[in-house]
Amino acid sequence: MDIKKEALAISEKLGGKIEISSKVKIDSMKDLAIAYTPGVAAVSSAIADNKEDVYTYTSKRNMVAVITDGSAVLGLGNIGPEAAIPVMEGKAALFKRFADVDAVPISLDTQDVDEFISHVKAISPSFGGINLEDISAPRCFEIESRLKSILDIPVFHDDQHGTAIVVLAAIYNALKLTEKKINEVKIVVNGAGAAGIAITKKLILAGAENLLLVDQAGIISKDDRALAERHKEIAEQTNQKLIKGNLEKAVESADIFIGVSAPNVLKKGWISTMNERPIIFAMANPEPEINPKEAKEGGAFIVGTGRSDFPNQINNVLAFPGIFRGALDARAKNITDDMQLAAAKGIASVIPVEELTTENIIPDVFNPSVAEIVARSVKEAVK
Amino acid sequence: MDIKKEALAISEKLGGKIEISSKVKIDSMKDLAIAYTPGVAAVSSAIADNKEDVYTYTSKRNMVAVITDGSAVLGLGNIGPEAAIPVMEGKAALFKRFADVDAVPISLDTQDVDEFISHVKAISPSFGGINLEDISAPRCFEIESRLKSILDIPVFHDDQHGTAIVVLAAIYNALKLTEKKINEVKIVVNGAGAAGIAITKKLILAGAENLLLVDQAGIISKDDRALAERHKEIAEQTNQKLIKGNLEKAVESADIFIGVSAPNVLKKGWISTMNERPIIFAMANPEPEINPKEAKEGGAFIVGTGRSDFPNQINNVLAFPGIFRGALDARAKNITDDMQLAAAKGIASVIPVEELTTENIIPDVFNPSVAEIVARSVKEAVK
Repeated sequence: MDIKKEALAISEKLGGKIEISSKVKIDSMKDLAIAYTPGVAAVSSAIADNKEDVYTYTSKRNMVAVITDGSAVLGLGNIGPEAAIPVMEGKAALFKRFADVDAVPISLDTQDVDEFISHVKAISPSFGGINLEDISAPRCFEIESRLKSILDIPVFHDDQHGTAIVVLAAIYNALKLTEKKINEVKIVVNGAGAAGIAITKKLILAGAENLLLVDQAGIISKDDRALAERHKEIAEQTNQKLIKGNLEKAVESADIFIGVSAPNVLKKGWISTMNERPIIFAMANPEPEINPKEAKEGGAFIVGTGRSDFPNQINNVLAFPGIFRGALDARAKNITDDMQLAAAKGIASVIPVEELTTENIIPDVFNPSVAEIVARSVKEAVK
Repeated sequence: MDIKKEALAISEKLGGKIEISSKVKIDSMKDLAIAYTPGVAAVSSAIADNKEDVYTYTSKRNMVAVITDGSAVLGLGNIGPEAAIPVMEGKAALFKRFADVDAVPISLDTQDVDEFISHVKAISPSFGGINLEDISAPRCFEIESRLKSILDIPVFHDDQHGTAIVVLAAIYNALKLTEKKINEVKIVVNGAGAAGIAITKKLILAGAENLLLVDQAGIISKDDRALAERHKEIAEQTNQKLIKGNLEKAVESADIFIGVSAPNVLKKGWISTMNERPIIFAMANPEPEINPKEAKEGGAFIVGTGRSDFPNQINNVLAFPGIFRGALDARAKNITDDMQLAAAKGIASVIPVEELTTENIIPDVFNPSVAEIVARSVKEAVK
C-alpha cells in the first residue's frame, strides 16, 4: 500500500489522529466530586481571585491551538477549513510526540483577516500558545503580527518561521565545516513567496549581510520599477549592489543557495561558478531544485533537501515542538526573534562539532535530544 | 484532606484534567509520512472533493467543544473565562469517561451575544457538536437557539436541558411506582430561573398538563400585572386556573414537587397537604429544599436530591455523555426535543420495572449501561 492509501486508511479507521484523554480517574463519587462539582469550585475560585493561577491549575499551561483558515494548505491551496483538519491533526500529533505539547486543531470558517484575529483572540483564554498554520500570504503576515501585539501568549506562524529556523540551523553547521562566517558569505534565496522572505529575514537577523532574493522575474532589486508591493520591505534589506539578472547570474560567486521554489531550476553547471565549497539547500517538494547527486557532481560541498531519503533533511519538525515546549515552560508572553535564533543554534548544537560531516549537519528528526535542547535554548532566550 | 483541597492539589499536580493524545504512532520516517506530509495531502484532498468526508477521516466525528464565557459558573457567578476553565475541563473529563466523547474546553473572552455566536460558528468546522456551559440567563436562551438555527452540528446547553432530562427520567420511574400518569398529575416547580423554566418546558413536552411554576414572589400567573418578561412564555403554558399564592398554597394537592431553588424552603408540614404518595425532588445545592429524612417523616413517598449521599441522585452526568454519543454516532444535525425525551426514557429504562423501589428510581452514575442505553435511545430518535 502506498503512503497516500495508508494515510486514508488509517484516518478512516481511527477517525482522525488525535483524541482527548482525561488525566484524572473518575471511578467513585469521591473522584467525581474532586474532578467536577463541588471540588472544581475551589479551583475556579482560586483563579477568579488570581487570574495568573490559570497556569497553575489548568491545561492552559500546556495547551496550544493549531489554527488555520484552510487558505493555503500544503501544496493544495485554498481548500477550506474542513479539508485542512487532517493537516492540523497531524501537527497536533507531532506536537505531542516530539515535545509533549497538547495541541488542539481549530479550523476557522472565515478568511477575513479582522474576523480571524477576533476569533483567535476570543478563544485565547483556554490556550497557552497559538500556532498559526497554512494561511495564505500576505494575510498570514498581518494576522501573525497583529495577534502578537494583542495577545499575551506566544503566537507563531510555523510556515514562515519553522523552516527558516531549521535552514538557519543547517547554515550554522555548514559554515562550521566550510570555515566561513555568516556576515561574510553571499547567500542566494530562490523563491520570493512567504517561505523565501521568511528565510531571508531570519538570515538577516542572524547577521547575514550579502543576500540576493530571486523569483521567476529575476533578482529582486529595490530600484526595479516593477517591484511588487510585497517585496518592498525585503528589497531594502537585500541586494545592496542593485544587481540585475536571473538565477544563473545570482549564483555566481555565491557561497550558499537556498531554494524554496520549483523542481530542477538550479543547473548543475552553475555550481562551478559559485564560491569554493558551495552549500546547496534545495527544498522544493517533492522534487528539489537540483537532485543532490547531480549537485555533488557539479561541485557542491554540502547538499540538503526537504526529503528524508537524502542526507541533511530540512524538516520543521526539528523546530516547532521544542520552540513551544520552551515558550510554555518559560511562560513566555511571545516568541521573539532572539528565541527563534536560539532555537536555530539549539538545533545546530545537537550535533557535536567533531561529528559534523558534509552529510551530517542536521540532526535526525527522531533524535530525542532535539526538542529538549531546543526547548532549553528557547527558554534561556526568554527575556 | 477535604474535597476542595484535593481538587486544588490534583489540578496543580497534573496541570489541569485533560490532555491531547495522538492515536497514531510516529516512530519512523514512514510513520511521519503517513501522519503528516506527504500522506496527509491525500486525506485533505479527499475532504476537499467531498466535504462530508470530514466525518470519515477526521476527529470531527467524535469531537465536541465545551464552550463557556464564564458568565454563570456553578454557584460562583460571573467569574470570567479563565476561572471557568476548570469546570470545562471537568466536563471534558466526564465526556471521555462516560461516553468516549472527545471534548475540548473553550473559554471565550467575550460576553456579547452576537460575538459569542460568531466565534462559535467560526470554530465549528473542527467540531461534531457544541456543548454550551455556564452561560448566564437570559443570554443562554438566545445563544442556544440562534446557534441551533445556523449550525449543522448538534448544539446543547446542558445547564438548561441536562438536569431537566434527568428529572424527567426520575418522574417517569416515580410515576410507574405511584401508578399515576404524567398528563394527570399536578406538578409544582419551585424556582423560576433557567433551570426551573427548562424543567417545566421539558415536562410539558413530555405531556404534563397541570403545572405551577413558583418563584420567591409566589405562583407565576399570566394575569399577574408584575409578570416578568422572562416568564411571559412559560406563564402561558402553566397555571391554567390562574391560581394565586405562595409555595405552601401551590403544593396543596400536588403530586410532585420539584425544587431548584434554595435550602429548606419546603416545610415538612406541607407534604401532608399534597396528593397521595407525594414525590419530592429537592435539588438545591448543597442543602436541599427539604432534608430527605424530614420529607419522609412528613409523608413523602419518593425523595430525590442532587446529592450523592442520599438515594435517587439527580445528576446530569446521566444525560449529556450518552446524548452526545448518540447524536455523534447518528451524525445528527441537531439535538431535538424528541431526542431529549428519548434520552429521559432511556435513563429511566436502565432500571427494570421489577427493580424499581422508592429508593431506586434513578440509575447510579457509574452504571456502565447508562450512556450506552441513552446513546441508543437518542440515536433511534434521530429523524
